[in-house]
Amino acid sequence: MHATGINIKPFLDENFLLENRTAEALYHEYAKAQPIIDYHNHLPPDEIANDKCFSDLTDIWLKGDHYKWRAMRTLGVPERFITGPAGALEKFRKWAETVPFTARNPLFHWTHLELQRYFGATELLTPATADGIYEQCTALLHTPEYSTRNLLRKMNVAVVCSTDDPIDNLEYHQQAKADGFEIQFRPAFRPDKAILIEKEDFPGYIRKLGQTAGVEIIDFDTLLQALKNRIDFFDENGCRLSDHGLEQVYAASFTRQQAESALKKRLSRQQLSPEESLAFKSAILYELGCMYAEKGWIQQFHLGALRNNSVRMMRQLGPDTGFDSIGDFSQANTLARFLGHLDSENKLAKTILYNLNPRDNEVMATMIGNFNDGSVKGKMQFGSAWWFLDQKDGMEKQLNALSNMGLLSCFIGMLTDSRSFLSFPRHEYFRRILCNLIGRDVHNGELPNDVEWLGGIIQDICYRNAKDYFGF
Amino acid sequence: MHATGINIKPFLDENFLLENRTAEALYHEYAKAQPIIDYHNHLPPDEIANDKCFSDLTDIWLKGDHYKWRAMRTLGVPERFITGPAGALEKFRKWAETVPFTARNPLFHWTHLELQRYFGATELLTPATADGIYEQCTALLHTPEYSTRNLLRKMNVAVVCSTDDPIDNLEYHQQAKADGFEIQFRPAFRPDKAILIEKEDFPGYIRKLGQTAGVEIIDFDTLLQALKNRIDFFDENGCRLSDHGLEQVYAASFTRQQAESALKKRLSRQQLSPEESLAFKSAILYELGCMYAEKGWIQQFHLGALRNNSVRMMRQLGPDTGFDSIGDFSQANTLARFLGHLDSENKLAKTILYNLNPRDNEVMATMIGNFNDGSVKGKMQFGSAWWFLDQKDGMEKQLNALSNMGLLSCFIGMLTDSRSFLSFPRHEYFRRILCNLIGRDVHNGELPNDVEWLGGIIQDICYRNAKDYFGF
Amino acid sequence: MHATGINIKPFLDENFLLENRTAEALYHEYAKAQPIIDYHNHLPPDEIANDKCFSDLTDIWLKGDHYKWRAMRTLGVPERFITGPAGALEKFRKWAETVPFTARNPLFHWTHLELQRYFGATELLTPATADGIYEQCTALLHTPEYSTRNLLRKMNVAVVCSTDDPIDNLEYHQQAKADGFEIQFRPAFRPDKAILIEKEDFPGYIRKLGQTAGVEIIDFDTLLQALKNRIDFFDENGCRLSDHGLEQVYAASFTRQQAESALKKRLSRQQLSPEESLAFKSAILYELGCMYAEKGWIQQFHLGALRNNSVRMMRQLGPDTGFDSIGDFSQANTLARFLGHLDSENKLAKTILYNLNPRDNEVMATMIGNFNDGSVKGKMQFGSAWWFLDQKDGMEKQLNALSNMGLLSCFIGMLTDSRSFLSFPRHEYFRRILCNLIGRDVHNGELPNDVEWLGGIIQDICYRNAKDYFGF
Repeated sequence: MHATGINIKPFLDENFLLENRTAEALYHEYAKAQPIIDYHNHLPPDEIANDKCFSDLTDIWLKGDHYKWRAMRTLGVPERFITGPAGALEKFRKWAETVPFTARNPLFHWTHLELQRYFGATELLTPATADGIYEQCTALLHTPEYSTRNLLRKMNVAVVCSTDDPIDNLEYHQQAKADGFEIQFRPAFRPDKAILIEKEDFPGYIRKLGQTAGVEIIDFDTLLQALKNRIDFFDENGCRLSDHGLEQVYAASFTRQQAESALKKRLSRQQLSPEESLAFKSAILYELGCMYAEKGWIQQFHLGALRNNSVRMMRQLGPDTGFDSIGDFSQANTLARFLGHLDSENKLAKTILYNLNPRDNEVMATMIGNFNDGSVKGKMQFGSAWWFLDQKDGMEKQLNALSNMGLLSCFIGMLTDSRSFLSFPRHEYFRRILCNLIGRDVHNGELPNDVEWLGGIIQDICYRNAKDYFGF
Repeated sequence: MHATGINIKPFLDENFLLENRTAEALYHEYAKAQPIIDYHNHLPPDEIANDKCFSDLTDIWLKGDHYKWRAMRTLGVPERFITGPAGALEKFRKWAETVPFTARNPLFHWTHLELQRYFGATELLTPATADGIYEQCTALLHTPEYSTRNLLRKMNVAVVCSTDDPIDNLEYHQQAKADGFEIQFRPAFRPDKAILIEKEDFPGYIRKLGQTAGVEIIDFDTLLQALKNRIDFFDENGCRLSDHGLEQVYAASFTRQQAESALKKRLSRQQLSPEESLAFKSAILYELGCMYAEKGWIQQFHLGALRNNSVRMMRQLGPDTGFDSIGDFSQANTLARFLGHLDSENKLAKTILYNLNPRDNEVMATMIGNFNDGSVKGKMQFGSAWWFLDQKDGMEKQLNALSNMGLLSCFIGMLTDSRSFLSFPRHEYFRRILCNLIGRDVHNGELPNDVEWLGGIIQDICYRNAKDYFGF
Repeated sequence: MHATGINIKPFLDENFLLENRTAEALYHEYAKAQPIIDYHNHLPPDEIANDKCFSDLTDIWLKGDHYKWRAMRTLGVPERFITGPAGALEKFRKWAETVPFTARNPLFHWTHLELQRYFGATELLTPATADGIYEQCTALLHTPEYSTRNLLRKMNVAVVCSTDDPIDNLEYHQQAKADGFEIQFRPAFRPDKAILIEKEDFPGYIRKLGQTAGVEIIDFDTLLQALKNRIDFFDENGCRLSDHGLEQVYAASFTRQQAESALKKRLSRQQLSPEESLAFKSAILYELGCMYAEKGWIQQFHLGALRNNSVRMMRQLGPDTGFDSIGDFSQANTLARFLGHLDSENKLAKTILYNLNPRDNEVMATMIGNFNDGSVKGKMQFGSAWWFLDQKDGMEKQLNALSNMGLLSCFIGMLTDSRSFLSFPRHEYFRRILCNLIGRDVHNGELPNDVEWLGGIIQDICYRNAKDYFGF
């Protein structure tokens, strides 16, 4: 260790990411105390319902975290220590070896933020500190204070929305409600499997969907009826959002007849041409959009991921294991057509667009402006920086594009999109970055020095806008 | 109001956007005093010819400003207060309610810059100050000092170029000249309607064009003759620029025969295939390019807008009302082919490319380098940041791309592209940003500390390059 | 000259581009002393073999430098002073006139860095200093210390890899080895001409390739055999890398039969359809990839250039004369398919992707993560900022994208890609920028203040990673 002078900001202190006094004031006096509405994530509902405790730090922190896996593979760590048969402590030690090589990657910040906020562990994670940190955290994980619900409470979470398939029976959401869990725990409706007609398991999925919905699905009308039934069921169980994960929005011209015949053909297990497939997908996405609007739901679109790029590892490990990347699909025309179609019939629900390729930030930031119609504050949203973009640079670019081409003040803010109960400090991370951008502008004379006014906007973005927008 | 410390730069003071002494010196000693050449805007010629006075602040500031409308709609302001029947003061109050929510959007800067520069109003616009500011500004607007011509004089404008249709008779430009208006007021030639052959009103427009030009348009040759006549007429009336607003440049292979038959088919009111349409548009754009070169004009291309995305509001309000956005069209191949075709025949006019999607800044900044041929300083220009990009971040990106991949020193600088007589402080805004970038480089040791040399380059960019380039 | 205050960093002093003490320490104590591995450039092998001396500063500095030519053309300098018949001093004076107008372009930095580092010339190059600098440098060039090999030694170069055609006999590499040149001088294998089947000279090239390889090329198998022979020959002569310059990677579905028939058709001098052409190119690129993997080579892809855009100047001067630009091709799908195909068969070699359009940085930074499989540190590389991006802003964007979406610590760092023996200070330029980014993070509290640890990562990036990666 070789110190290089005074005036160096300590790493990860209480003013982390806050570069001046205004930024500090905005964060500590306005942002920090706001409750968290985590309106989109991938937490396992059963683990909340059962208030699960974790066996060790590897169990809660490394299992299922494909961000960490990807970093380890890049450094040359063999798969046996990542998803393979190595023991929990062995795996943790490999992660600890990796951490110093993640400098400048968000993993380096997340890692130490999570250790500090949840476990009070302030040492840097290195091979030298690995075993101590593992023991300290694992011991805490064995206490009741570290059950899933208590982890959420610790972070001042007011609402969590999981992501659920239409055929899910939502028993875990019901169970949590039944036993009086005070944090709002809501499902979200993600019907990708009912849309991706070209997938091999589509016919089987449709059969299951029909069974769950109590509808025999034989044509497009009965498919819509089944989805409608599930939407009603989800709504009764507190759902207010749908979500779609797509490369691009589907927005071809279509007739009901085309959708109908594509569906029937596929249910009889024939292959479709790309045009037939697209007609069906465009039709079903439109019809779902209409249902969401009627229900007063918010529809979300996660656009632009190129998934499962390693065929070899897909065979070995399945999806969502760290082999996805950022695509370079066209987005503007399809979005304009899809949203415009719904809007022209007054059937456009509140909508959140999440963008995975930062080159398209400006397309998204201006696209939402086309359909903000004065009906409600921030009807159309450019969602927070997502996945690979969920880091300081990515967030700043999203916030700046939104600020320059829309109204930052109407933004509904951050979500974790995470599978982990330890990811909630990302809200803190976001809030610090937000406060810092605004504090910098004040410091530079680009905004008036009125912290009360700006603090109010920050509170809106951190909590109140989302609360009003979703009606939570 | 809660102050957070010393060393905070006051908002919008005389050193607004200037972060160090070098930037200040460059702006105040070199940039500020330069006259304005606003070589592209959408000012209404009749209002200059008639030296119009405005009835109130809403009349001059909110009527027709779709930037402000879009922000109001985003905040949830009903259309009745935007384009609807509400009264002038009511509408102004809604705008004043909106302004504090535009923090970080260029509207916040423009609003206060325009109030300060034109009206000496230095208070922030909020609901509390709305009525006072409205009265103060409206009273000034009723004085002769606030006629259109005096507003231009107040801003030290040397040249303004409006944007005009080929069938315009240019009476207002002639009227201004006839009565001795000392500011150069020139038309620019924008023949989009003669190109967009698939539009419903194309045949009707061509008939009118023929009448105006004194040519019966029956085939491609007579169409070219009519356009040539109008170009001659515009040239006689001081025009030196054309302009085209396109998603992409048209650059398909075509034969004269294809263009001919597409035109005839369309004039007989038949629909064209996309290929027929593109062949015609490629042919006419090429022929116009040749005419501009022969005339010594400058051709401008505004590329990449995706327009009229809300069908519903298009029906209600028409075009240019705030429902346009940034497209993600391919640009490189078509530009290379179109410009290369003209260049290969020594018929490439001086050209300005304006880019709406910042992801394409580097394509544009390098594309111009392909056709700078040593014939004249800065023959090919990457135009200033446009529309949604006309803000600090957008301007900095354009200036940086141009600097890194071309010669900033040859840049012809800023234009308003505005429909409003109150938009001219955007030149000041641009100049401050330019001076700040260069001042920052000096401060950081990335440029030598020679303010006289750099000040000269800044004067070139603010005024002299444009004067020489256009021959004004 | 008008000074504007204290606290202005001197231009190009020893702490050039280093904005704080940490950055200075990282550069001076860790980065500076590392040897240079220039693993990709376009140096002329004969000039190394013969240890050439240059006749004057124009000879070594302006002849062949299309960056400088492009700047001069932009300023309006006639071609006669660029590639034309003007004398060496005349040409140099025109360049000196141009330099002050290159402020903010990397040429301004490179120019003065090269004058300072090679010649100790610290004056700014202007018309006033032109003749003196020309004389001073030309005199030095006439001394033995300025031969090509001594210029490389002066820069502490450990390895240089040229770029060579498969039919090259590598005599100059052999000659340098034979006479004991102590710097590793290696060839790299660039078989573009064996791939671009639609080019007019393809059949002729294939005949020559067959002769050189001692194989009569009559079908796809014999073509592969010929290439295999040349790869073996290159490998015996120290080659460890291939390189491909493509708009996009070719990754269509193909059968061996399609490739075969396309090749035979073309060898009989018929034209191919785009589909036939693409099938062949996809097949050959795949087969080459397999050979590289078998050989343990590294494959490089330079993607996205749009070349020879001025047909007129192409006729006059040929390729690589300053008329190329940045394209906007799609990259993600083709890369995923091409790399995924090789990976699925365990035939994916170590790979470096160079990207010319900065909008695709994030696609590249995440694409490599899809195929890092734990087998070796940094198997897949996102190559350093290239060509138009080889400047501070371009490098920072590449480093930041790589940091945020991959592991910067595994990066193999800088290369010149240059045709000039005076370009090696670009390694210094890169190292300063790298140290500055990390120093800034430390200063801001975004990285812990542990210079020894970070200095180690920097040494890895500047030297050790490349040494290990290539096995030099």
